[in-house]
Amino acid sequence: MKIINIKTKSKHYNIYIGHDIFAKLKKIIKKENIQFKNSLLIVDKKVPKNFIKKIKSNINSTKKIVYLFNASEKNKNFKSINSILEILFKNNFTRNDVIICVGGGITGDISGFASSLYKRGMKFINIPSTLLSQVDSSIGGKTGVNNKFGKNLIGSFCQPDLVISDTKLLKSLPRREVVCGYAEIFKHSLIANKKLFLFLDKNLSNILKLNPKFIQKAILESCKVKKQIVEKDEKENNLRKSLNLGHTFGHAYEATLNYSSKLNHGEAVLYGILSATKLSKKLNLLGKNDYEQILSHLSKLKFTNLSKLFSRKDLKKIINFMANDKKNVSKKLNLITLKKIGRVNISKQYNTVQIRNFIKSELLK
Amino acid sequence: MKIINIKTKSKHYNIYIGHDIFAKLKKIIKKENIQFKNSLLIVDKKVPKNFIKKIKSNINSTKKIVYLFNASEKNKNFKSINSILEILFKNNFTRNDVIICVGGGITGDISGFASSLYKRGMKFINIPSTLLSQVDSSIGGKTGVNNKFGKNLIGSFCQPDLVISDTKLLKSLPRREVVCGYAEIFKHSLIANKKLFLFLDKNLSNILKLNPKFIQKAILESCKVKKQIVEKDEKENNLRKSLNLGHTFGHAYEATLNYSSKLNHGEAVLYGILSATKLSKKLNLLGKNDYEQILSHLSKLKFTNLSKLFSRKDLKKIINFMANDKKNVSKKLNLITLKKIGRVNISKQYNTVQIRNFIKSELLK
Repeated sequence: MKIINIKTKSKHYNIYIGHDIFAKLKKIIKKENIQFKNSLLIVDKKVPKNFIKKIKSNINSTKKIVYLFNASEKNKNFKSINSILEILFKNNFTRNDVIICVGGGITGDISGFASSLYKRGMKFINIPSTLLSQVDSSIGGKTGVNNKFGKNLIGSFCQPDLVISDTKLLKSLPRREVVCGYAEIFKHSLIANKKLFLFLDKNLSNILKLNPKFIQKAILESCKVKKQIVEKDEKENNLRKSLNLGHTFGHAYEATLNYSSKLNHGEAVLYGILSATKLSKKLNLLGKNDYEQILSHLSKLKFTNLSKLFSRKDLKKIINFMANDKKNVSKKLNLITLKKIGRVNISKQYNTVQIRNFIKSELLK
Repeated sequence: MKIINIKTKSKHYNIYIGHDIFAKLKKIIKKENIQFKNSLLIVDKKVPKNFIKKIKSNINSTKKIVYLFNASEKNKNFKSINSILEILFKNNFTRNDVIICVGGGITGDISGFASSLYKRGMKFINIPSTLLSQVDSSIGGKTGVNNKFGKNLIGSFCQPDLVISDTKLLKSLPRREVVCGYAEIFKHSLIANKKLFLFLDKNLSNILKLNPKFIQKAILESCKVKKQIVEKDEKENNLRKSLNLGHTFGHAYEATLNYSSKLNHGEAVLYGILSATKLSKKLNLLGKNDYEQILSHLSKLKFTNLSKLFSRKDLKKIINFMANDKKNVSKKLNLITLKKIGRVNISKQYNTVQIRNFIKSELLK
């Protein structure tokens, strides 16, 4: 079992990473000195029943309410937040009680957001159940919901009190979900850790098979990259923008397909990374060797052909969504590009016509 | 013009206090280095047109949208937040744009909450237009909305980037509103500053007449008390609870009357202070001299008779609302009591039956 301590301005908390660590949940909560009287477990419906049972039996609290959440981008809205708040109010939860989330990124965002709003903030423990949420959304405190204008456009920064990442939970994930989480690990390596990239490239098959030794190392190193960035810039004023590598493209791809199951978030990020890599090469920011190493890795993952999903008639929609991405602070597009593997540009701006032509000529041939 | 710097863990910002300082607004914003491209002014409908015009002409921004808000407890809800968010989305505001609030506490809470939610937080300048908001809600970063379960039950902690308290704005307030704000100044003196209490007791009439010299000193000293408390405890874990002196009672009184115009927030707080003072005396926590000084002051303000508003048949409602107050973290009631003028108990607990009997016998004779 490994522990990473996250130190943000607003809160310090620990992430526990290990295999089958639920049996120790009671002990961990005690060791972390997290006290509460009542708990609301918000659990993604897809989490296997035996895990829920195990987690529930390992929590000490007077009231122990389980709320099964049908996690989907469609349900990641204010209506779901209101349903959760209603349960908390009806059961007279106080600010010292806790929400415990067991689920992926969507369930985590909903749970964290609700916990931050209820009486201006109650306790929050996150038990991410997907690879994506273990390496991404469980660190950094971003919470939020979608609305008709786009994804995650309403939300808060709210750090959890504790995160438990149990790799045993990942066993029930379909391969597509594993690849989805892997996208962020891969992204973290490209942003800040070439050694991690080489480890991933060499051991891709073992990692995707969730071989404990390999997947735990990948999660740990990936979390360390995100930790370093988030600690320096909790509220995404500057450095944290590097984590958006591939995301402005990726969000636009998801949105253009109306968040359909054809393309999940991690897959969109992989296409986003493909796009950012090609753009970086096109602008002579990224050298040939590194470009080819990245493309070869994306090719092993089978994420090199955007034309499978989009045609040129989608261009206008894609560009409109990119210009509306909340990370863009002006009409120009702030896109993260690559200098080399392990190093990014975060402050470059591009105009929409330039990017439109780039997507048209390089990605949708 | 006086400047108080507020240093919380999450943000440092300045409060400017002065008379007719709007003419300097452009300069102040520049000096504070608050940059934005677009601004949304959320203005309480009750603010005189000439003030709005003056403020608007003193802001530099590309888009300058004015949203007139009909401030009331009834409209302090999520629907209003959504209307504001909708304007921001439709006008493509970014996280680096600003909301400027001109209004009282309700408008400030709505504006601050919306600014904290939009893309997880945009810039926020608060220009409190009532005495209450100048001495209370403009410091501390509490924002929120009401719902069917009670007042301010959903919200966030969100510090503004700048506060401008112009006493010229107060000239248009009805006397009842002035007394309402005065309640918090009086409360601050009781919590932490006997010298301020003596100043208030001596100069009550000049202060309520808004004589510039007196009202500015009262605002400044009152803000200093709140500053000291909020800086030490931004998120109300302990010390900040002292600011709830009279508030658990007060909130219950307001709620029992369904937030009708019969009793505004400040008036409820004055009755709350009356209640807390009597309770402190009854429990032999507060000495006779201080008790009589406080009662004499409340008597000058004409806030010594709770039976004007409630009868014993309201008792059950009052107690239920007290037990549901979000500041209570268990079935027992955490009530702030007085040790002496300038010193409070924050950690004492009382059971609901005891408080019910106290209200019955001491306040609703």
